Amino acid sequence: MDVAVIGLGLIGGSVLRALASTGHRVLGYDADPATRATARTAAAQAPADGRWQVARTVRDAVARAELVVIAVPLPAVAGVLDELASAGYTGLVTDVTSIKGPVQALVDRHLRVGSDRLAGFVGGHPMAGRETSGFGAADPSLFTGCAWVLCLEPGSTSLADWLEVAELITRLNARVVPAVADEHDRAVAAVSHVPHLMASALAAVAADDPLAGTLGAGSFRDGTRVAATRPDLVAAMCGGNAAAVGPALDAVLDALVRARAALDGPDPIDGLRTWLEPGSAARLAWPPRGGTPVELPAESDALLRLGRAGGWVTRVADDRRTVTAVRPAHRDPA
Amino acid sequence: MDVAVIGLGLIGGSVLRALASTGHRVLGYDADPATRATARTAAAQAPADGRWQVARTVRDAVARAELVVIAVPLPAVAGVLDELASAGYTGLVTDVTSIKGPVQALVDRHLRVGSDRLAGFVGGHPMAGRETSGFGAADPSLFTGCAWVLCLEPGSTSLADWLEVAELITRLNARVVPAVADEHDRAVAAVSHVPHLMASALAAVAADDPLAGTLGAGSFRDGTRVAATRPDLVAAMCGGNAAAVGPALDAVLDALVRARAALDGPDPIDGLRTWLEPGSAARLAWPPRGGTPVELPAESDALLRLGRAGGWVTRVADDRRTVTAVRPAHRDPA
Repeated sequence: MDVAVIGLGLIGGSVLRALASTGHRVLGYDADPATRATARTAAAQAPADGRWQVARTVRDAVARAELVVIAVPLPAVAGVLDELASAGYTGLVTDVTSIKGPVQALVDRHLRVGSDRLAGFVGGHPMAGRETSGFGAADPSLFTGCAWVLCLEPGSTSLADWLEVAELITRLNARVVPAVADEHDRAVAAVSHVPHLMASALAAVAADDPLAGTLGAGSFRDGTRVAATRPDLVAAMCGGNAAAVGPALDAVLDALVRARAALDGPDPIDGLRTWLEPGSAARLAWPPRGGTPVELPAESDALLRLGRAGGWVTRVADDRRTVTAVRPAHRDPA
Repeated sequence: MDVAVIGLGLIGGSVLRALASTGHRVLGYDADPATRATARTAAAQAPADGRWQVARTVRDAVARAELVVIAVPLPAVAGVLDELASAGYTGLVTDVTSIKGPVQALVDRHLRVGSDRLAGFVGGHPMAGRETSGFGAADPSLFTGCAWVLCLEPGSTSLADWLEVAELITRLNARVVPAVADEHDRAVAAVSHVPHLMASALAAVAADDPLAGTLGAGSFRDGTRVAATRPDLVAAMCGGNAAAVGPALDAVLDALVRARAALDGPDPIDGLRTWLEPGSAARLAWPPRGGTPVELPAESDALLRLGRAGGWVTRVADDRRTVTAVRPAHRDPA
């Protein structure tokens, strides 16, 4: 398949390398000339079976593409969509942005206007962050075993398009998770955006006491690790998903207010023990382990039910009529 | 020095091995016969310069001791203190329990009654938790570089006793942090106890949505790691320190409520960026890096000021008149 990857940071660069190493013809592009030069040098050193090329413009990159992967930060997505529209691109488009509702809205506004044939869009999000960034950190095996959401919007995403992209992503050894954009945005609010806010609150409050900073050990180190992320990136991620992050943060605040009441109660130790049990059981059961793979019909309802149950797709059948699906196995706390 | 270590779990076992390897004569004891047998077997296999012995009773363990290290969980501390009192023990006592105010209160009630000569007590807390537990996980190098609080209670701790214990602990390569019990309990509430409660809240809330569990990645894994700790242990730790954990949790709740308001504000991205900056700067400046070592007079006020400033002691001079102290170096965020 001819694929264009627009944006060659950690994720885009890793997608480029992973797709090239699975036999696709890949053209990359990045708005930053230095990044393009780095990628070109790396391409010249790549083995023959994992080679890609670097284009000088978005238009050049997508000229022959059947699939475009948009791997730029959210604020730059609209500009790329405009370039695709002005290039008359009508193939498949996916993205790797961490919020899906807003991207879907941008696609409706910027890509699907003024062209006779419409490009097909399947929103995506690989859950594969890392401390490192930039093309230099790109790793073709970054997605092995990682959850990769592909949005299946009723009335918007074509099932055929979804299966086409899903087929490609499963070959990167990712777990393809079908979801609608709203479900995705609510879930990442709970497991990614709220954790960033909590880490920041914890780090800021402890900073008021130098003694506390000196006594911080494992629980503080891990609980605050992502607080070191650049504030503008976290603000864009959480603020761009404010409608979902608000209620997710409320749920955590409610739980902590109950812990606070237990601390003031007649028996804080007993009250907290009861309060702590659900979180302990949940963490012992996480991450979900897959049960026995089953064949599922490749239909929207079945796929979305699978995603809601915490399941994922590991393979799309060649005839695109079924998928191999894995549901989380029930696991008793150790 | 003749030292008895009562309680041979991860911390007690590591203290035993670390002290034995620095040349002390160490006798260990554990209430659990199986743990005593494990420790005896390990003693037989230990090199000649790191050998210790295992006693059959607390009384036997402390009969010749100049220092007793109490390394049992908080609920068992009173019983050990009673045994020391009934054995007529009048040497030095320290402990490794994670809350210091309540232990000081137990010492006043259980150890310092009914004996003509009083045992000297210096409360301690090495910040060296680990996932593993039990004597089998004990490691003589566990304390290298770790902060180890030694309490210096005005009107209660003898400075000579403090310096004696501090001298011993610095030789385990730990950073000895002088503090009063209340300061310690407030600091660990912020950097250890509240992080445990937050991890639990995060894990419990995400468990409501199977999709969220499947999408959880690095920020969720790290932000919830300590939620898997046994609820009874966390409840004892946080509930036993309720007076300090309550206000520390309030401070974090206040910060999160301000983040919540930013999410509802006219520009969530801009509002959150401002809100995130202190936490990001704080985390980038953590852990504190030591500045140039200086000599300080070995006096209570100077030592406590050092601890409040986030500093620590690395050496006690042979004449016990000065200590080598390190204050955190100012560090610009990267």
